[in-house]
Amino acid sequence: MDLKFISGGVCASKNFLANGIHCGIRKDKNKKDLALIFSEIPAHSAAVYTKNLVKGAPLIVTKEHIKINNGISQGIICNSGNANTCNADGIEIAEAMANLAANELNITPENILIGSTGVIGQKLNIEPIKNNIHELVKNLNHSPEASDSAARAIMTTDTQKKEIAAEFEINNKICHIGGIAKGSGMIHPNMATMLVFLTSDVNISSECLQKALSNCVDSTFNMISIDGDTSTNDMAVILANGSAQNNLIDSDNDEFKIFCSALNTILTKLSRMIAADGEGATKLLECRIFNASDLNTARICAKSVICSSLFKAAMFGADANWGRVLCALGYSGADIDVNKINVEFESNAGKIKVCENGAGLDFSEETAKKILNENEIIININSNSGNYTATAWGCDLTYDYVKINGSYRS
Amino acid sequence: MDLKFISGGVCASKNFLANGIHCGIRKDKNKKDLALIFSEIPAHSAAVYTKNLVKGAPLIVTKEHIKINNGISQGIICNSGNANTCNADGIEIAEAMANLAANELNITPENILIGSTGVIGQKLNIEPIKNNIHELVKNLNHSPEASDSAARAIMTTDTQKKEIAAEFEINNKICHIGGIAKGSGMIHPNMATMLVFLTSDVNISSECLQKALSNCVDSTFNMISIDGDTSTNDMAVILANGSAQNNLIDSDNDEFKIFCSALNTILTKLSRMIAADGEGATKLLECRIFNASDLNTARICAKSVICSSLFKAAMFGADANWGRVLCALGYSGADIDVNKINVEFESNAGKIKVCENGAGLDFSEETAKKILNENEIIININSNSGNYTATAWGCDLTYDYVKINGSYRS
Repeated sequence: MDLKFISGGVCASKNFLANGIHCGIRKDKNKKDLALIFSEIPAHSAAVYTKNLVKGAPLIVTKEHIKINNGISQGIICNSGNANTCNADGIEIAEAMANLAANELNITPENILIGSTGVIGQKLNIEPIKNNIHELVKNLNHSPEASDSAARAIMTTDTQKKEIAAEFEINNKICHIGGIAKGSGMIHPNMATMLVFLTSDVNISSECLQKALSNCVDSTFNMISIDGDTSTNDMAVILANGSAQNNLIDSDNDEFKIFCSALNTILTKLSRMIAADGEGATKLLECRIFNASDLNTARICAKSVICSSLFKAAMFGADANWGRVLCALGYSGADIDVNKINVEFESNAGKIKVCENGAGLDFSEETAKKILNENEIIININSNSGNYTATAWGCDLTYDYVKINGSYRS
Repeated sequence: MDLKFISGGVCASKNFLANGIHCGIRKDKNKKDLALIFSEIPAHSAAVYTKNLVKGAPLIVTKEHIKINNGISQGIICNSGNANTCNADGIEIAEAMANLAANELNITPENILIGSTGVIGQKLNIEPIKNNIHELVKNLNHSPEASDSAARAIMTTDTQKKEIAAEFEINNKICHIGGIAKGSGMIHPNMATMLVFLTSDVNISSECLQKALSNCVDSTFNMISIDGDTSTNDMAVILANGSAQNNLIDSDNDEFKIFCSALNTILTKLSRMIAADGEGATKLLECRIFNASDLNTARICAKSVICSSLFKAAMFGADANWGRVLCALGYSGADIDVNKINVEFESNAGKIKVCENGAGLDFSEETAKKILNENEIIININSNSGNYTATAWGCDLTYDYVKINGSYRS
């Protein structure tokens, strides 16, 4: 499939508008804190949510709205600076956010989905949103700058804006998927993810959209871990408004496969962006498992390596401590034969094999250091036990992670 | 039960000798690296081991020796500086360690159990052990200093020696349990633990000894986590030589309960010592779950809080970020009602309730800061769902953890 990355983020999809502003939830006036994404025509929607039993109020209301409206939605409102989670009035406030946006857009509140991200357990004041909703809606537009402002408005400790868009064809019609994401700490998605808002002009049923999203999330967002903490507010939402005018995708056909392939490429890119911008991170870690006995085993192994605090700290120090890789595989819970495992470190500076059949090889520490001093490190693990592969993404554990999280609420 | 803590460590138990020396496995001549514990008469033995699939060679040989000898052992040899794990010749080297000690002690090698701790995947050179075994055995003695030297010889990144002993009575006979432990990083025991060597002069069968050890470990060592990494070399061993001359404990009777109670007290103390000395730690964290629906739920919840990197970093910063406690409970996998949960922080400086029925309370940040600035923090969590309790121990996540583990092999 031909897929071309383009600019424009969520506004790259036809008939989608966006805007992001500072409304006053965050103290720093230079930080935007309220985003809105809007489809000019009703869109099919699908979403995946955190499996944390503690769920942010916005997720509960979003789920309800998608259900009430039979998978039809038209907009997403999201604030940063406060997660609206573990608050007695959380549901009420999330509904008020939807009502304010809906009134201003002249649609029903059930057409609006809601996201919130930031500190848990502090009341979210609706006033700043109420006072600025008119401005937020008034300046909605199609420009790349509009998507940029929305992407910035959902950032918390993120240091990089996360935005993507791509163009591809279905039935000779030009189609688009665009997205923005946030996620930097409390990242260990479980069947869902950080906040990711995706738009598409592909003509696809809600059921197929949900299936595509759920499948792609399993091999992308669910394979990231920054700190092993599964957030209460993880959510990925996609709206598809059909403006590309391809034949409706309503079954598992060739067109569905093209859409899934495009979506998977987009989500993989976003996953890498999120992992690379992990709190305090200096390096992106990519762990690739080859020749595992089954897919689940491959995924468990890849994720266990990416999650090991000890291994992450070693990568920060560019220390080729492969024993910690084997250790993490050993306690992962996967049923593996550790005596068959080979380990190799790889980066732009080259690659080096450090372990074969579960035992150490003599290797040049100097070469290993050179490889591990790069800012993207690949850990290749050959299980020699089957045909399955999986990839997981994470980042190193650094002084700055501790610094950022020692005083997050301050 | 009356139990009195005394000095003497592993030598507090009658007819136990010990010694620890520098033999040359570690480069720094000021660091001891070889320990020996010896019972003058054959003792019943029991052990629990890591559940990591990657198991250190010393554990494999120890398990085999206990089996061959029907639960009778007489000595434990242990080196630090090298884990003898993931080495092609690991088993051979572990057996050589037992042979060298046995020859010098004039017993059979199967009477010797073996431990190793340190870096994984580097060959352990037997020469320094061979060259110094005579001196190690020659200077075995009963003194508190002897236990001290053994306790120091098994330390790696530990900053504090971990040693304990207690006296209690069974059938009017004075009995003892003594122990030494190491453990600072890669601490997330799973049915076993770091290295812990225990001695006792209680007269107890191997079966009862194993049962007591396994039970106590579940509520003590298995409730510690420093970094979520389950080591390849975790092992807890106990030798009981019967010198106290109480009636043989060979069933689940009252005397067995006294022994278990004493052992549990000892292991709880050691657990706290290990958690407080976690790599880079500045604070001991103790998470207590009250009124859980069952024991397993209580344990899972306590451990999930203790394991959260985000919560650990918040404790380092003395930040009362209780939302991270709820978040960790929510993703723990335990079946809990988050809307019933109360959270309270406690230390020598007082206590403060921060969350009730799953929602935040107004509280004084100043008071909270004062409480969290202490070096032992208790997190009290009331589940309001039943009658079960559990306690887990951990430590804060600090810059020094990252520093220590960024260059562990160097």
